[in-house]
Amino acid sequence: MIVSPHALRPPAGPVPEAMAQHYQHVRALSVALAAPLSDADATAQSMPDASPAKWHLAHTTWFFETFVLRDYLPGYRLFDERWPFLFNSYYEAEGARHARPQRGLLTRPTLAQVLAYRAAVDEALLGALPMLTGRCGALIELGLHHEQQHQELLLTDIKHLFSCNPLGPVLWPPAAEAPEPLPEQPMRWHEGSVGLVEIGAGADGFAFDNEQPVHRQFLAPHALADRPVTNGEWSRFIADGGYATASLWLSDGWAWVKGGGTGEEIAHPLYWRRSESGWEQFTLAGWRLVDLAAPVSHISFYEADAFAAWAGARLPTEQEWEAAARNADPLAGIQLDTAGPVAPRAVAGQGDGLTSLFGNVWEWTGSAYRPYAGFRTAPGAVGEYNGKFMSGQFVLKGGSCATPRGHARATYRNFFYPHQRWQFTGLRLAKDL
Amino acid sequence: MIVSPHALRPPAGPVPEAMAQHYQHVRALSVALAAPLSDADATAQSMPDASPAKWHLAHTTWFFETFVLRDYLPGYRLFDERWPFLFNSYYEAEGARHARPQRGLLTRPTLAQVLAYRAAVDEALLGALPMLTGRCGALIELGLHHEQQHQELLLTDIKHLFSCNPLGPVLWPPAAEAPEPLPEQPMRWHEGSVGLVEIGAGADGFAFDNEQPVHRQFLAPHALADRPVTNGEWSRFIADGGYATASLWLSDGWAWVKGGGTGEEIAHPLYWRRSESGWEQFTLAGWRLVDLAAPVSHISFYEADAFAAWAGARLPTEQEWEAAARNADPLAGIQLDTAGPVAPRAVAGQGDGLTSLFGNVWEWTGSAYRPYAGFRTAPGAVGEYNGKFMSGQFVLKGGSCATPRGHARATYRNFFYPHQRWQFTGLRLAKDL
Amino acid sequence: MIVSPHALRPPAGPVPEAMAQHYQHVRALSVALAAPLSDADATAQSMPDASPAKWHLAHTTWFFETFVLRDYLPGYRLFDERWPFLFNSYYEAEGARHARPQRGLLTRPTLAQVLAYRAAVDEALLGALPMLTGRCGALIELGLHHEQQHQELLLTDIKHLFSCNPLGPVLWPPAAEAPEPLPEQPMRWHEGSVGLVEIGAGADGFAFDNEQPVHRQFLAPHALADRPVTNGEWSRFIADGGYATASLWLSDGWAWVKGGGTGEEIAHPLYWRRSESGWEQFTLAGWRLVDLAAPVSHISFYEADAFAAWAGARLPTEQEWEAAARNADPLAGIQLDTAGPVAPRAVAGQGDGLTSLFGNVWEWTGSAYRPYAGFRTAPGAVGEYNGKFMSGQFVLKGGSCATPRGHARATYRNFFYPHQRWQFTGLRLAKDL
Amino acid sequence: MIVSPHALRPPAGPVPEAMAQHYQHVRALSVALAAPLSDADATAQSMPDASPAKWHLAHTTWFFETFVLRDYLPGYRLFDERWPFLFNSYYEAEGARHARPQRGLLTRPTLAQVLAYRAAVDEALLGALPMLTGRCGALIELGLHHEQQHQELLLTDIKHLFSCNPLGPVLWPPAAEAPEPLPEQPMRWHEGSVGLVEIGAGADGFAFDNEQPVHRQFLAPHALADRPVTNGEWSRFIADGGYATASLWLSDGWAWVKGGGTGEEIAHPLYWRRSESGWEQFTLAGWRLVDLAAPVSHISFYEADAFAAWAGARLPTEQEWEAAARNADPLAGIQLDTAGPVAPRAVAGQGDGLTSLFGNVWEWTGSAYRPYAGFRTAPGAVGEYNGKFMSGQFVLKGGSCATPRGHARATYRNFFYPHQRWQFTGLRLAKDL
Repeated sequence: MIVSPHALRPPAGPVPEAMAQHYQHVRALSVALAAPLSDADATAQSMPDASPAKWHLAHTTWFFETFVLRDYLPGYRLFDERWPFLFNSYYEAEGARHARPQRGLLTRPTLAQVLAYRAAVDEALLGALPMLTGRCGALIELGLHHEQQHQELLLTDIKHLFSCNPLGPVLWPPAAEAPEPLPEQPMRWHEGSVGLVEIGAGADGFAFDNEQPVHRQFLAPHALADRPVTNGEWSRFIADGGYATASLWLSDGWAWVKGGGTGEEIAHPLYWRRSESGWEQFTLAGWRLVDLAAPVSHISFYEADAFAAWAGARLPTEQEWEAAARNADPLAGIQLDTAGPVAPRAVAGQGDGLTSLFGNVWEWTGSAYRPYAGFRTAPGAVGEYNGKFMSGQFVLKGGSCATPRGHARATYRNFFYPHQRWQFTGLRLAKDL
Repeated sequence: MIVSPHALRPPAGPVPEAMAQHYQHVRALSVALAAPLSDADATAQSMPDASPAKWHLAHTTWFFETFVLRDYLPGYRLFDERWPFLFNSYYEAEGARHARPQRGLLTRPTLAQVLAYRAAVDEALLGALPMLTGRCGALIELGLHHEQQHQELLLTDIKHLFSCNPLGPVLWPPAAEAPEPLPEQPMRWHEGSVGLVEIGAGADGFAFDNEQPVHRQFLAPHALADRPVTNGEWSRFIADGGYATASLWLSDGWAWVKGGGTGEEIAHPLYWRRSESGWEQFTLAGWRLVDLAAPVSHISFYEADAFAAWAGARLPTEQEWEAAARNADPLAGIQLDTAGPVAPRAVAGQGDGLTSLFGNVWEWTGSAYRPYAGFRTAPGAVGEYNGKFMSGQFVLKGGSCATPRGHARATYRNFFYPHQRWQFTGLRLAKDL
Repeated sequence: MIVSPHALRPPAGPVPEAMAQHYQHVRALSVALAAPLSDADATAQSMPDASPAKWHLAHTTWFFETFVLRDYLPGYRLFDERWPFLFNSYYEAEGARHARPQRGLLTRPTLAQVLAYRAAVDEALLGALPMLTGRCGALIELGLHHEQQHQELLLTDIKHLFSCNPLGPVLWPPAAEAPEPLPEQPMRWHEGSVGLVEIGAGADGFAFDNEQPVHRQFLAPHALADRPVTNGEWSRFIADGGYATASLWLSDGWAWVKGGGTGEEIAHPLYWRRSESGWEQFTLAGWRLVDLAAPVSHISFYEADAFAAWAGARLPTEQEWEAAARNADPLAGIQLDTAGPVAPRAVAGQGDGLTSLFGNVWEWTGSAYRPYAGFRTAPGAVGEYNGKFMSGQFVLKGGSCATPRGHARATYRNFFYPHQRWQFTGLRLAKDL
Repeated sequence: MIVSPHALRPPAGPVPEAMAQHYQHVRALSVALAAPLSDADATAQSMPDASPAKWHLAHTTWFFETFVLRDYLPGYRLFDERWPFLFNSYYEAEGARHARPQRGLLTRPTLAQVLAYRAAVDEALLGALPMLTGRCGALIELGLHHEQQHQELLLTDIKHLFSCNPLGPVLWPPAAEAPEPLPEQPMRWHEGSVGLVEIGAGADGFAFDNEQPVHRQFLAPHALADRPVTNGEWSRFIADGGYATASLWLSDGWAWVKGGGTGEEIAHPLYWRRSESGWEQFTLAGWRLVDLAAPVSHISFYEADAFAAWAGARLPTEQEWEAAARNADPLAGIQLDTAGPVAPRAVAGQGDGLTSLFGNVWEWTGSAYRPYAGFRTAPGAVGEYNGKFMSGQFVLKGGSCATPRGHARATYRNFFYPHQRWQFTGLRLAKDL
């Protein structure tokens, strides 16, 4: 995670008051998300890809303690000098660290101790804020965006953990007054931009290193669907034998469907199961009937690509998606505001615009996650953030129902391996014109 | 786990008062052992061989609820009808069950709920005790022996879990007034019985199915060491290149040393590490210097066998061991009495007898775990207990510092796979005469 | 492979003439068995458990070259000094060696070169025979028994290789005039010896180290079946759901049936498949209909044990088997005489004696392969032969249709892991009386 | 493998005479390449990624037999109707096929039989050529390009097989009169094209489906090295700790270096080993000293990327490479002409042009292998060729010393997984300007 050059530009004076408020707001949401969790809930790790909630809470705190307090606050003493080994994630430059798949064995420190760690670091940082200058403002901003990423992971990791429990625990019960379910809307095509477009993050506002620099790309004539693919459409893909038709799948994807990755064959999205009433899915509110009008989620890139082939379409490139979203409001849509019910939802059509670009479900693109022309990795530990993951993964755009509002933007590049699907991942169709 | 015929002999009248007291004593010890544990400590599972403490507490309770209350108490309603799926262990006849390696993901029910389950079943069982007749007495006795087995596992499983935590948690601090350390004693040989001996459990007292029936075996002239091999002797084995000398090892053992089982080479007992002051080992009281006069423990059968080869000796057979222990007091020695410090200790020599036969460390024998002549499996779910594990494992005798006092006896046959070593496992040498 | 003490007793004079003839006879059979093989057939390795035919031909030659010519013939120069690295099997004391699973990649030396190696070593050894004294006679005898073991492996390994080829190659076509098929005979029980019996090989005749020394064992009353279990009986076990009934199986066996060992579930003996005409099996003569009256073969210990449980019986111990076979003729029965058709066959009943004790199929016993009381490993490289395999395996008795006649005897202890079944392995039932 | 639309454009009349000559030339080269191989050499498979030489010879023949003779020659009878199951590669639409990792077990048919198969198909096809019209010409052309791909694989697969043999077999001895070794040349930078460029194969000449259609890309200012990275430069990367510096590597690459993929750590290119005289490498002429002036080869994408990071540069994109090569002669350079010595070689500088664009070593680009804008998969079995591999792999450009001359072109897109390195794979540096 490297701060963009503009973000690192030293502010004229001390770190502004607004940052203190923003800091408190973001930090408080993490604690609120974990509030329903027991000590054990917050400790368990259900798979190597996931991390314990306690670890998310501590790791994000370690970021501020290490890169701000330790490095910029003279005389600061670590809360516990043994903890950096436990809560460093992958920053090789910061030294050895606890093996990732063993995170679930860290029953100590307890959740209560981790919450005390958060409180202590918050107090130290907020107290020091008026004295911190220069690069610190940029590092704190970076740390808050980093924390927002972990808020989303905390939710998806807990969802995975709870899904492994036959009792089907509920994080939050569904909203008392659920909105009237919408009918499934027909999909419509919208022409995209053609010719040279500018891609990437420029000088205004925060952006991660991987969104930079601004550069040009040529787009051929194409169209995008007005909305993500729905659960209803997906159930028709299943019924039509989509998971049993080799010609629809990438070669790696077909091996994955046949169990290469998991030991058992894949025949539906993650968290789905059949019941007498139809398809059910596991949600943060427990097992629920699938809402056919809502966007499909928890699908892998392989599934998204096969569905697109079945539909006679393709996935959009990340550039097509970004060009289409450039003028959309990244603060709109189904995103995370507070600790409470989180799930993709059907959205009413919006005239002739594209809906659900931001929030609801991350949208797989057909673009491999590789560096932009002109991309450079920053020096030092924070420079390890994004560049070293640039092989084997695919770009997702837009954000999900679990993305904290304010975190998403058109240039944002999320990335996962093509078999991963425990995030709120869906797709939007594209086609050549 | 099948009750022996004599144990199942219907008592003359109702279950005696003494059983209620014994029941309360055993059940209370389990709770006491878990008292230092947090909800998270009690939930985590550090490897597939181990189970969470919470699971041990619940599974032993499930045994009483299922085989006594459900089957013999008219009108009994299950505490929670979803829990048998979670807390059945391997009784195929009792239906589907939660996958063993996933036990650590059961963050719900909480430790507090499991303790409430224990209290409810105890209350129901103790209340019903005067009315229970016939086979129930035998089933309760069986359940208590079963619970004692799980008490030992609970301790060794927690030890393994804590060993995975870089913070090195302490279950109980060492005793305030540690006994004066004993010097290492020279090993002496004692001749064993020769000719036909009777082996196995007869009609007096409780015994598991695998200890039966009594049968005859012929013993050739041999001698047994008066005490287990010590840590001091083991450190000389290491210094002499024992772990690097292929000719000392069984072929499977050599593959195991070379990392076949774990991904990394083996060069010392489990839980040992070098420090500037010499060998340290992880204990339930944290990292401690190795006591050279104490019995070595946490070694695999392969290691025991290689050490014996290095020493120009061999492992005893289970029959040689049992014949030697026939007249020893199974209630003597370093065994588990209360919740508190647990570790093997050096024992002073006892004239010309054998020491540490019971307690301290389980002793690997050279006997593969197979059925006795005349062994029969009992019908029904409890009949699955021991017979189906009779391949690939080796017999251990005597008990350890974590075996509840009263559980061990000369005919007892414990068994583990030859690579396993998270129990308090050691060895005693034998040789032909 | 350690020569027994008597075998190592120095002969009075030079190695006798008879040994030259025996040497030539055994060595010629190996070449004859490989005669139908192409260079590629002789090179391929179908699984890590198996070895290429070429490797068998070379390794057995390496034994004579190393332990006789190199060690006892002054001035002998190795045929090729790079080859010992290739053709040593597991003698750690003889230095590094080619990784076992990579044997099939040794396309060079060619089959023709290996045959030239055999001829050169044979010429050197036969030429030197009059001058070789003392231990050499014993080493040559050992080498010939060793070669006979590899003759059997050569056949079973080729059978496995050919079974992997969809073309179903034939090593030898079936005998032109097949004997009239026998009807399936009812099984009858015979009482076995009771009380103390002597077990193991004494001072007359060759024996491997693991058959020694003679020692006493106590046998309880029991009976043995007069013949091995037949394919017909096995097909009834299948039809009765034997492979789907967990309670019949050892715990490790059930995991194996469910695919733990192979990735796919087990539902019949190795080499069986269903056809429209019933069960077929792959043989050295290609795919053939199963002969229901012939002994079942290519079953694992787990399958043998489960079948016995289904039949209300058990496997015999190795001592029961040896005691029963003590007075039977080990040269009788269906054994390997020449290069030609090899398969188990139905055998007519023999009055009230036991049939098929020797030859036809190896019979799994219920005895884990462990050292006899008083067993000692010999020093040096040849001492590595049998002792180091004494964990995790089970004893088989009697020999098979692929065992060279003259190799079997009542005290012979063959051994394999409980899941292995590419040998001609079957079973005979036993029961307690 | 789908023929491009222009390639499938029906010729005006019957398939031309020139095609018969080209067919004979290409087909003869395959046989010549295999001439030094024994039956066993041609059968063995050293890893799942590789195929036996015999399989390459048969599979390429199966292509002509299936898609030309079977589909277009009325009355044609298959050479052996059981063989398509064996020699189909991955065309799901053509039905079931032999498992890829088991190809090395097909000791039958023999090499001689496969050569007879080739002769029979050649005779049938050449005989029928005057009568074949329409799509057949395009299919034959496709089959010949397909065969050329397998010629390169045959060589690299044999190289891998021979490298596994401690005897280090030689396919062809080095040329009797080796050219005077060239000194290592300093690397120079050349500016590349900037702005919109046309990428992809147009209507003239043969091209695979994945090179199409022509489309536009925008290139930012950049420079390319005038020649590939040399072995000398690579040895300095090693000496500078390149393989031990995590910050140089992609995250996946670092896991691969640490043994994730192979069980052992990576510290040099494939086929390298240290000797007293310096680095040696295994070649088709056996073990040879590394030529420091020659291009490095047998490196993975991960290694190429790490080297570029170490050098302060990056890999070129496939578009930058193609734009630079557009006017270079694809018939020039170190490419495969006849059966004989094959190895990368140092090339003298060529004024201020780029050298070694074609031949010598394939050059890893930084471009993930994904479909071109407007790419479409063709229907039917041949349509499976390239599209379904478009995930997880990276594009390589240019060709190698083992690429048959005439096969390479600027638009050619080769692709491999980032860990694969048994091809002649190297790299050329690029940088932003």
